[in-house]
Order: sequence, then C-alpha cells, then structure tokens
Amino acid sequence: MSQTLPPGVSAEEFSRALKLLTGIVGEQHVQRSEEELAEYRDPYSFAGRDEFVPSAVISPGSVEEVQAIVRLANESRIPLWTISQGRNNGYGGAAPRVRGSVVMSLRRLNRVLEVNEELGYAVVEPGVRFSDLYDHLRAGGHRLMISTPDLGWGSVIGNALDHGIGYGVYGDHAAGACGMEVVLPDGDLLRTGQGAMTGSKAWHVHRRAFGPSVSDLFMQSNFGIVTKMGVWLMPTPECTLVGTASVPREEDLEAFVDTMRQLMLDRMIDGVPTIASALAVAWLIAPRENWYQGEGPVPEEVVAEIGRNLGIGRWTVRFSVYGPQAVVDAKFAAIEKAFARIEGAEVVGATYPGDAGADIVAPPHQVPAGIPNLDMLESVKWCGPQGGHVGFSPVLPLVGSVVREQRDRVKRIVEKYGFDHIGGLLLTPRSVQDVVMFLYDVTNHEQVTAAYAACRELIVETAKAGYGEYRAHLDAMDLVADQYDFNDHAMRRFTERLKDAIDPAGILAPGKQGIWPAAYRSAPLS
Amino acid sequence: MSQTLPPGVSAEEFSRALKLLTGIVGEQHVQRSEEELAEYRDPYSFAGRDEFVPSAVISPGSVEEVQAIVRLANESRIPLWTISQGRNNGYGGAAPRVRGSVVMSLRRLNRVLEVNEELGYAVVEPGVRFSDLYDHLRAGGHRLMISTPDLGWGSVIGNALDHGIGYGVYGDHAAGACGMEVVLPDGDLLRTGQGAMTGSKAWHVHRRAFGPSVSDLFMQSNFGIVTKMGVWLMPTPECTLVGTASVPREEDLEAFVDTMRQLMLDRMIDGVPTIASALAVAWLIAPRENWYQGEGPVPEEVVAEIGRNLGIGRWTVRFSVYGPQAVVDAKFAAIEKAFARIEGAEVVGATYPGDAGADIVAPPHQVPAGIPNLDMLESVKWCGPQGGHVGFSPVLPLVGSVVREQRDRVKRIVEKYGFDHIGGLLLTPRSVQDVVMFLYDVTNHEQVTAAYAACRELIVETAKAGYGEYRAHLDAMDLVADQYDFNDHAMRRFTERLKDAIDPAGILAPGKQGIWPAAYRSAPLS
Repeated sequence: MSQTLPPGVSAEEFSRALKLLTGIVGEQHVQRSEEELAEYRDPYSFAGRDEFVPSAVISPGSVEEVQAIVRLANESRIPLWTISQGRNNGYGGAAPRVRGSVVMSLRRLNRVLEVNEELGYAVVEPGVRFSDLYDHLRAGGHRLMISTPDLGWGSVIGNALDHGIGYGVYGDHAAGACGMEVVLPDGDLLRTGQGAMTGSKAWHVHRRAFGPSVSDLFMQSNFGIVTKMGVWLMPTPECTLVGTASVPREEDLEAFVDTMRQLMLDRMIDGVPTIASALAVAWLIAPRENWYQGEGPVPEEVVAEIGRNLGIGRWTVRFSVYGPQAVVDAKFAAIEKAFARIEGAEVVGATYPGDAGADIVAPPHQVPAGIPNLDMLESVKWCGPQGGHVGFSPVLPLVGSVVREQRDRVKRIVEKYGFDHIGGLLLTPRSVQDVVMFLYDVTNHEQVTAAYAACRELIVETAKAGYGEYRAHLDAMDLVADQYDFNDHAMRRFTERLKDAIDPAGILAPGKQGIWPAAYRSAPLS
Repeated sequence: MSQTLPPGVSAEEFSRALKLLTGIVGEQHVQRSEEELAEYRDPYSFAGRDEFVPSAVISPGSVEEVQAIVRLANESRIPLWTISQGRNNGYGGAAPRVRGSVVMSLRRLNRVLEVNEELGYAVVEPGVRFSDLYDHLRAGGHRLMISTPDLGWGSVIGNALDHGIGYGVYGDHAAGACGMEVVLPDGDLLRTGQGAMTGSKAWHVHRRAFGPSVSDLFMQSNFGIVTKMGVWLMPTPECTLVGTASVPREEDLEAFVDTMRQLMLDRMIDGVPTIASALAVAWLIAPRENWYQGEGPVPEEVVAEIGRNLGIGRWTVRFSVYGPQAVVDAKFAAIEKAFARIEGAEVVGATYPGDAGADIVAPPHQVPAGIPNLDMLESVKWCGPQGGHVGFSPVLPLVGSVVREQRDRVKRIVEKYGFDHIGGLLLTPRSVQDVVMFLYDVTNHEQVTAAYAACRELIVETAKAGYGEYRAHLDAMDLVADQYDFNDHAMRRFTERLKDAIDPAGILAPGKQGIWPAAYRSAPLS
C-alpha cells in the first residue's frame, strides 16, 4: 500500500516536514505506522475506506508546541486536523476530513488548570475528559457538579466546540463555555472575552468584553485551536431529582412534546431532558436479538409491547431538577400537574441528596447527576458485536406537530433503507435536536453504505421541510452545509471569507463543517 | 460655521454622494440642517463639542434601501454610523464616532414582524422600542412578557447589540437574541443561525446551526447592520414576585454580594437583580438638593441617614422571581433564609398575578414585571434641570471582596474629581457590571470635562487591577479597547483583520468599539 500524503505534497516534501515536526515534539509523539494510525481512522466506517485517513499523528505537549507546529504547517502547506480526544465516533471519531492530513492530537494537554468553587467554574485543557474533570473535582473535595454527555470519555472542550449536549443545568455545553485561549492558524495566540486583557480576573465569569465576542467563531469551525477554556459548573445542590414521564400510545407524541415545551419555557425542568421511544430504551438495555428476531425494522406492535413490558410507555422522557428540597418538590408538583392532562401518563421521580455521588448506581440516573460513565457504549452492538453507527441530527422547533411530521418522514426513509428507527430527542425550551442513530454491523459493507445513503436522503428531504442539521459525519459535512443556502449560500460565502482572512494558507482542518480555504475551492479534491 | 464633511471627502464629492443617497430614500428622509442634526449630537456633552457630529442623517424605509445606501457608501467612501434608536445617551446617544459620518437611522424600520406565543419569541426590526413591543403584545392579547431595561424608549435590537441588560429572565439581552438578518458592509444580505437556510422554520428557536455561529460578531461591532432579530420572551407566569433585600451597614457590602452570588448560582433568583447604595436610591427619587446642600460629594454619614430615613438600609437589592405560586414561594423562602445570616438584613416581596400588567403602578416594580416606562429619565437632573451623565462600567467577578476593593478605588477617584459616587450593580450569577454614573450639569463645561477625565483615570486604574469595561462612551472607546492588551493586543489585531476582510472599504462605523479599518489605521484622525 502506498504512503498516504497530504494533497499536493510529495513524499520527499512530506518527509522533510515530518522531520521538522518531530523536532518540535520528539520522536515518541509522532506516529506514522499503519497500526498506529488505525486508531485515527473512522472506527465505524467499513474496512478499507481510505478517504478520511491521516498521514501521521503528532501530539504536542504544550501550547508553544502547538504554535510551532502550526507555523511549520504554514510553511510546508501541510493540512492539520485537530482533535481534543476524537471520541465522537458517530461522526467520524478522530479521522480527518482531508485524506493525508496530519492529525494533531491534544490528548497530552490534559490538565485541569483551575477550579473556582466560589464562582462555579473550572479551566481545562483540551485533553481533559468529562471523567477526568469529575475525578479531579471529587479528589479536591469540591462541591461542584459537572454536566456530562452520555459517554464520559469525550473531551470537555471538544464536546463544547462541537455544540455537544449534556444533561445538567449547563447541558448546552457551548453556552456553558466562558473564555478561551486559541492558537490561530498563523500561530498567534488569542484570548477571548475578558481574557483579552493581560492579567484579567474576569476571564471565566463573563462571556463578553468590549467589542464583538469571537468565542463562537472557534466552535464547529476551522478558525483556530482552543488550548484552554473555562467551563461553568453548578454548585452541588441540596438535592437532585431524576424523573421520568411516560405516555402509553404512539399518538401521544404530540401532546407529550407540547407538554414538555410548556414546562421548559416555564423553567420547571433544569437539566436537558431527552425523549425516547420504547425501542430506543430497549436499545440501551440489550441487543436487537433480545427483542425481535424477524427481518426488517422492528414493527410498531413489537415496539408498543416492549414499552408495556418494560413499564415505560410508548414514549418516555428523562428529566432532572436541582435545588433546595422545597423548590424541587414544587417544580415536581407542577410537572405532575402538567402531565395529568394526558390520559395514562405516568410521572415518577427519584430524589438524591446533591452529594450522593457514587451512591447513585443506576447509569441512567448517574448521567443527569453529573457522574460520567461509559454504559451506553454497549448499545452500539445492537446488530452484533461489530456494531457501529452514524448520526443524523436535525434541529426542529419544539412543537408536537413538527416533531410528528419529522418523525414520519424519518421513519419512512430509515425503514426504506432497512434500519430500525432509533434515537433520542434532546430538548431545549424552544428547539429539539432529533438525533437519529443508524445502527449497523461495520463488517457489513452494504449496510454501512446504506446508512450513509439514508443520511444523505434525510438531509435533503428534511431541508426541503425547513430544517437543518446541527452536526454531521465527515461524509456529510459538505451536503449539510449546502442546505444552508439562503441568498446564494451567503453564510458559506461569509465564513469562507473569514477563513481566508484568518488562515490564508488554508492549513487548519480544510473542509471541516463544509468550510474550505481558497486553495481547495479553486482545486477541489473530488 | 463651515460644513461638516467626512474625512478626506470634498464638499463637492459629498454633495454628489448625498444627491445619490437622497435618490434612494427620498428628500424627506435626509436631514442636513444644523437644527435637524442637533438631535444626532451627544446630548450630554458640553455645548460646542464638535468631535462627534454627523454631516447628514439618512433614514431608509426598507432593507433594500439599507443595502443600496451601503453600496453607495462603498463607492463614495462615506463613513456610515448606524443607529437603531440612538437613545443610549450616557454613551453618546445617536452621535457618530467619526466627525462627518452620515448617520443612518433605522427608526423607520419599526415593525414587529412576528409574535410566536407558542414558542415564546418575537421578531422585530431595529426601530422597534421596548415600549412598542410591549404595546404590540398587549394589543394582540399575547401571554408573553418582555425584559425591559430602565428606559423603555430604546431599541430592542440596539440594546441587545450593545450588550445591554434588562431585568427579566432574558435580561441578558444579547443572550436572549436568536437569529438575525444582517446587511454586510458590502451590501450583501446574511441570515444567521438556522436562518442561513432558505425557508428555515427554526430561525428563532435555536441559536446555532452548522459551522461557527456568527451572530455575536454583529454585536458591539462595525461588521454589519442588523435589520431583523428574534428575541426570546417569557410566557406570562402564574405570578411575579418583585422583592428587595437590604442591609444596614456600609461594611455589609461584602456579605451582601456573596449572599446574592450563592442565591444566583443556585438559581433562586430569576430576573437580573441590581444592588444600589442608599444614595443611588435617593438619586432615583429626587434631585441632589433635596438630600444635601453642602459642597463636594455627599458624605457617608448623610448617605447612611438617607438609608435609615427611607427604610432601605445602606445597601439594597431589587430582585424578581417568576413562576407558579408554590415555586415562587419556595424560592422566596430560600432567599429569606440566605439573608437571615446577615444581622439586620430585611427581605420583602410583593407578589402580583403574572397578568397584572397595568395594575402594577410603582415604576421600580413595573420594570421587573416587564412594563417599560421612562420614569428614570428624571434622575438625570441630579445636579439641576440641565442634567447629563456619562457612564463607566467595568465587569467584575461577583465576589464581595472584589466589589469592595473596586468600590473603594472608584470612590476615591470619583470624589477626587468632585462627583457623587452613584450607580448600580447589575448581577449575573458569576459577574457584576458595576455601572458608575457621573452626573453633571451640561452647561458646566468644566464639570463635563472633569467627568471624562475621571472616566479615563478609572479605565486605566481599573485595568491595572484586572478588570475591563463592557461598554463605553464614544470618547473612551479607544482607551477601553487599549486595555484589552493580551499578547500585544491580539484581540484588536484579530478584530481588525476581520474588519478588513468584511469591510475592505472601511465605510461602516469606523472606530466603533476601537475597531478601525485599514485606511484609518494608516492615517489616524488625530
């Protein structure tokens, strides 16, 4: 097999550049062999797919090394693909968009730089995982609770930068970020928000400073490399309530969604709630063969039966409330009252002391209580031990009829391609991220390509209805970006203008989120 | 008096450009006479100050006209200074940073384009004032409550773009904005967030889309002209509680601030609370002569006595809680409990039905209940009927000792220049905007210039301690921006790089927030 190289770079040029890069970080922090690079391929793609593969991996140990690498990449025109942990396997893992990119792994930058218990924040480096931050806070005896996503192995920074969601009060992780340090594509060092002042003492307590705020520019973009970030944390509450509400009938979905919207707009629910169908709950419990042995998508009557057998209804929502007992009780009463309007709805809640910590053992209750785990990792094996998945995640207004309409659209297309309709609805007070998971066997080439094809059809059909994705697999980034087409793609024209100004050599993550630097726009890869 | 012209533009060139501009909007929407332009000077500066004065005012009636004006300004190199309402008199009102700019007033774009009661938002044009939006919602019978700042005459969009604060749940107005339409400095039209998709149905319910979010770039900047914006609104709650807590002694400030921080981090308070000294409360009630007739700053013993006489303590905070009665009661109990730890603290609360509306007549209770008024306008007359003011507004961590240290610093400098120390502390859970108001008689040239000098000294001294301003008068924009100096002013270098990419001709609001386009950087005005 021939050597993987960056586009337009000869083996000799690459070898010379890599020698210089090695000089920056040391031999042991550069990986080049096939075996070593395997970890940086898309783990859930079919074997042999060679589009999204790196030429090397380099792991700097300091911000200065990141700057030096970036400067060298500018000189040698080597595209860099930065990862914090690179654990977002449903969207491509650590794999780069452009074949032959050098992956810059920030896993070695793994320090929790500050914990401020009084003001409720921590400052972390990109290699810090949710589990690391949790462990650090416990070890220090800090009375602070993190918001963790389903899997605790991801980077706190990487997740926020990708607009990721957890389940706590600051579950919109991008919104809970405050103050960044960023290495720009030319190697310059920027601090955002109040951090733009030397010696600022308000860097991580106030998001804005004087003039435009630029932090959001470094999320889901290829405009810079975030090397430090403040993350807001909730003081450990007097008590944590993890509740579920469920409704019995498939057709209850609209009323269910509308009830949740009113509760959220009224601020009766504190964490980010998730709605799941009975099939999605089953998926989290055991592989498919435990529930259904037939061919084709699991039929509706089986799904309904699973719901009844598990006692979770046809639709269920997990939610959380945090605070003094009396406030939590009053909010829970309001939640019960709201659901009482739906016939057959059931609401249950489990209350824990805020500092219960490791005493909470049920994984679905651990996560809203801010305790990271890897429990959900098993669920990828829905179709067998070599399971994989790819996600499709549009954003919809949080309105029952809209969610219903989209669900029918998705179900039709998902089942046409032979998949089960599984996923979860992540709610904000006004919107919902309707995450659809295509679960497949990675050794089944046909099934994997069918999943990608289904995604593409969903992206186009959903855009026709007026809804776009919040995140996408490497394979779909251009197509998703294409859908944001108002005024002859004014947004893409604008972000590419910014890209050219910030990264004139076009070395940082070309193609990420569909943003291509000038050189790639004039000579496309394919 | 000679004609005011834009820098480097001859009277003939200007006349030609103005003729073309008039062709776009019509004769009646262009103002040129001294009398007409007087309204667009800084209303609180001394007479005859001719630095921040426009050459003309143009008022487009549509987005297309805004685009046409911008394109023409590019051709004729006329700097444009955009205002929504231009009512922010403490920071310069409608006056432009660069003498001779053409002020583009957006007051004619005054439609409420949409109200979505189900999803809790409205879409407004820049000319819509808080009072207009309030009236519109009442006229339509919508069960939605706005967040209003102290004065209801400002633009909803303009206030958010300037990082302004109101007192409701969405009182951080910049954070409550969702989805913009923006005319770029080259006349192109951009829609941010989900609006970047043609026909998006999620434009105003979800702030982010795919790729970096750029909305924040158009706040406190000169990167574009916002012509539409979504603004999140709270559903009318079952009840609104407006409360005050007060403490008796000057030295209670630290404990007062720390108690508020804990309550806010614990989410026991919903609206944006404000802490005021007894003198600031007196200021809102009646002019200075009613409280003190001596020379020099009002002495501490008089301030303490005012507090005792008014029954408001030495420090008082106004806060608000919204929701079902039981939840509001539980939160209020938590607030009472927290303040019980400070000897002599008093907490009182008035509860209104959420839809009490016009039945709430006390102006300080109207504002947190989302009812705009102009009550506070009188307070500018502290030093006499020709009163004016300029603001100094650093951002501090919400920590008692920090607030104390800054208070002592401010008091020393404010009193050195002969002013009373008046203002208010606007709280977020982790930070405080310490708004200091220099109140003067605009006919007293010496007093006005002393206020500017005091501001400048405060800006520099406060930066040495690690704190920067969130907003500034035209006069101080460069100095404030200067303080954000990390890594050889990396932030300014970055925003100016963006400026040059987005506005290569440098026609939009040069110098706003200290951001100058390339042409002005190479040939400074002064």
